Amino acid sequence: MKTIIQNTLIIPMDTNAPRTLHGDILIQGDRIIGVGGPYHPEEGDLVIDGSRCAALPGLINAHTHLAMTLLRNCADDMDLFTWLHEHIWPREAKLTEDHILWGSYLGLLELIRSGTTVFADMYFHQQQTIEAVLASGLSASIGATMFGDKLATQQRLPALRDLWGSFHGAGDGRIMIDAAPHAVYTCTQETLQTARDLAEEYSCSFHIHISESRKENSDCLSEHGKTPTEYLDSLNAFSVPVYAAHCVHLSDRDIDIFKRRNAGIVHNPTSNLKLANGFAPVHRFIQEGLNVGLGTDGASSNNNLNMMEEMHITSLLQKACTEDPRVMEAYQVLETATIGGARVLGRDHDVGTLEAGKRADIILVDTDVPHLHPLNNPISAMVYSAQSSDITTVISSGRIVMENRRIVTLDEEKILHEALRCAQQL
Amino acid sequence: MKTIIQNTLIIPMDTNAPRTLHGDILIQGDRIIGVGGPYHPEEGDLVIDGSRCAALPGLINAHTHLAMTLLRNCADDMDLFTWLHEHIWPREAKLTEDHILWGSYLGLLELIRSGTTVFADMYFHQQQTIEAVLASGLSASIGATMFGDKLATQQRLPALRDLWGSFHGAGDGRIMIDAAPHAVYTCTQETLQTARDLAEEYSCSFHIHISESRKENSDCLSEHGKTPTEYLDSLNAFSVPVYAAHCVHLSDRDIDIFKRRNAGIVHNPTSNLKLANGFAPVHRFIQEGLNVGLGTDGASSNNNLNMMEEMHITSLLQKACTEDPRVMEAYQVLETATIGGARVLGRDHDVGTLEAGKRADIILVDTDVPHLHPLNNPISAMVYSAQSSDITTVISSGRIVMENRRIVTLDEEKILHEALRCAQQL
Repeated sequence: MKTIIQNTLIIPMDTNAPRTLHGDILIQGDRIIGVGGPYHPEEGDLVIDGSRCAALPGLINAHTHLAMTLLRNCADDMDLFTWLHEHIWPREAKLTEDHILWGSYLGLLELIRSGTTVFADMYFHQQQTIEAVLASGLSASIGATMFGDKLATQQRLPALRDLWGSFHGAGDGRIMIDAAPHAVYTCTQETLQTARDLAEEYSCSFHIHISESRKENSDCLSEHGKTPTEYLDSLNAFSVPVYAAHCVHLSDRDIDIFKRRNAGIVHNPTSNLKLANGFAPVHRFIQEGLNVGLGTDGASSNNNLNMMEEMHITSLLQKACTEDPRVMEAYQVLETATIGGARVLGRDHDVGTLEAGKRADIILVDTDVPHLHPLNNPISAMVYSAQSSDITTVISSGRIVMENRRIVTLDEEKILHEALRCAQQL
Repeated sequence: MKTIIQNTLIIPMDTNAPRTLHGDILIQGDRIIGVGGPYHPEEGDLVIDGSRCAALPGLINAHTHLAMTLLRNCADDMDLFTWLHEHIWPREAKLTEDHILWGSYLGLLELIRSGTTVFADMYFHQQQTIEAVLASGLSASIGATMFGDKLATQQRLPALRDLWGSFHGAGDGRIMIDAAPHAVYTCTQETLQTARDLAEEYSCSFHIHISESRKENSDCLSEHGKTPTEYLDSLNAFSVPVYAAHCVHLSDRDIDIFKRRNAGIVHNPTSNLKLANGFAPVHRFIQEGLNVGLGTDGASSNNNLNMMEEMHITSLLQKACTEDPRVMEAYQVLETATIGGARVLGRDHDVGTLEAGKRADIILVDTDVPHLHPLNNPISAMVYSAQSSDITTVISSGRIVMENRRIVTLDEEKILHEALRCAQQL
């Protein structure tokens, strides 16, 4: 099966290609086999008209808690302690497999509509999330979530090993399982070390929250005499590929550890602002050569999963924080949301750019809308002006997931109904 | 002619009403005559189904430069000096009445699609903008823009007086003309004083940029020994109703002047971040009891006119800057975009809330979308989760401007075509 996207404005995000070109994209099976063209319409079993559109790599949401969509807008404008103890944790304690399944489906609808084709998740009842991801057509790095002490981890271990055994590489490589200890303040040393060992054993990554808040840092310094990054390094955690969410408060020495260990950072600007954790120095991370991806965090601390909005906010914050309007130009931002996220998740051989050989993860953005007129610089337009609603078509691993704003892999009406039923039980 | 919006979730923004209620809204002519209902369908010549929607007051964009839509995405990621001297001013020098007309129409399409029914503008060839606003059905406070020295102002004066004479109160009060000296650094003392005198003569407001950048403040201190606010106060400018855009860098004494003079502040968060001017202390302004509205600034320094995005960013920034996630709660943000903006523009007797007697400026937000499921707190949902594309229907002064996402007062296709033609000439 061959598909041609014809006559479109291509933004390939490939350092070996121009930043923009006009032409066609040729897809065979789940792979891109040609970018630029022209390709003869007869070469394609399916021809998609890409005129009046921009074609970009599918966006990569490198840190979320997908099923937390069920807790959207249930607790806002409050401090972290009240938020967690009085609102989030009591509701999370009630979460069943049924809730996670429909919360995941709900999140997937939103990811698709906002152009995300790959995401990294950290939550519970992962088999339900995986079931929903496989049905959706998207790809995901699913966290084998760990927290608590040695006993808790030992009890959890058979189920986690079963995740790797049953699903690591499932869906022709769409699903990957990563070791995901929650954070240094919720995991004991034994749990963190077990997570590291599992990441080594299964040749996967280690997904964790690091230095989200000042309190996390000061508590870790009190308890271990080290920053969270130093503490994890002392446990040899960085000997496996690490990607860390937030990283709002990294010291110079922490940044050096990330550099030496080639670890990835996931920037979560909306969440960091909403919970008043601060401004991550993303411009500096990029200048230092670190791998930076972008994520929405969960819908409960955001309150949406809109990567277009995260991109715009990322650029704006770095300009204001550095007091230099030239930094974090649009192209760099778009990198964090595509190839940057791919590098962070260890998927850059497979996704993140539009180039021959890569997985056909492609989104079409309708440029024929008032707020994209005149288009002028298309890169600026995508990052500063475009809205998630401009995304009309999403192709994931060569499969059409959304076409002209209609999701074709999932039953949207049923999902909204079931998700609402689940949310009402929480 | 009576219209009923039936069976909807009403967010009236009226301190005498609950924050949300379910029911109907009754409109007669250009006015709201009842909120809550129920009203019998036979009472209405037209009945709009408001189920699965939230009804809010039309949003108020209290500071923009509408026709700058033509310069969208033409110059980004650069310092203010390069941006102005090499990109914006050379293009602005070419602007003709034809450009302003179609640039204004283009901006109006975007305002309507993002739920704005009233805006304050400061630009050139205002008659073209007024022509477009009148055709659109929206309301606008149009700046009689002034800059330069006494001679420049004297030369401009007949045309400005003609604006007041021909258009102040036009469209049954939809159009108001405000005196709009650009800023203290672009206007001489005589020009600022003339603007003040004109505001007094025509009983209108005085619209100006104040303390947008640190440089504006330091230059003003060097030249006049006063901050821009103190300098304007020394010219007695605050003896007329003032609304000032940006106000990023106000001193304690400046804030006192705003308080004593009951002057309004227009917050422009995206523009202030993009141009690296900083973070306006909006939470403090509100705590001090100042009138605060919200604006997008021009599309060239934003790069869109999306008030839903400005609302979200406003809340996020205040939480992060104060390091307190409880501040600038969603309801306060929604106030800045509705009744707050109305107060700033001196229109709060007429617009800004859904209550009987006010102009029927109403937007319907489709809540039946994945990113508004579950809705939970509808106020949070509007500010933190909703997208401009969720706005389906816009009523302005009782007239349907957009219905089910189709703009009915303007020819969208023609406008996009003509605006593109104009942009290509710049």
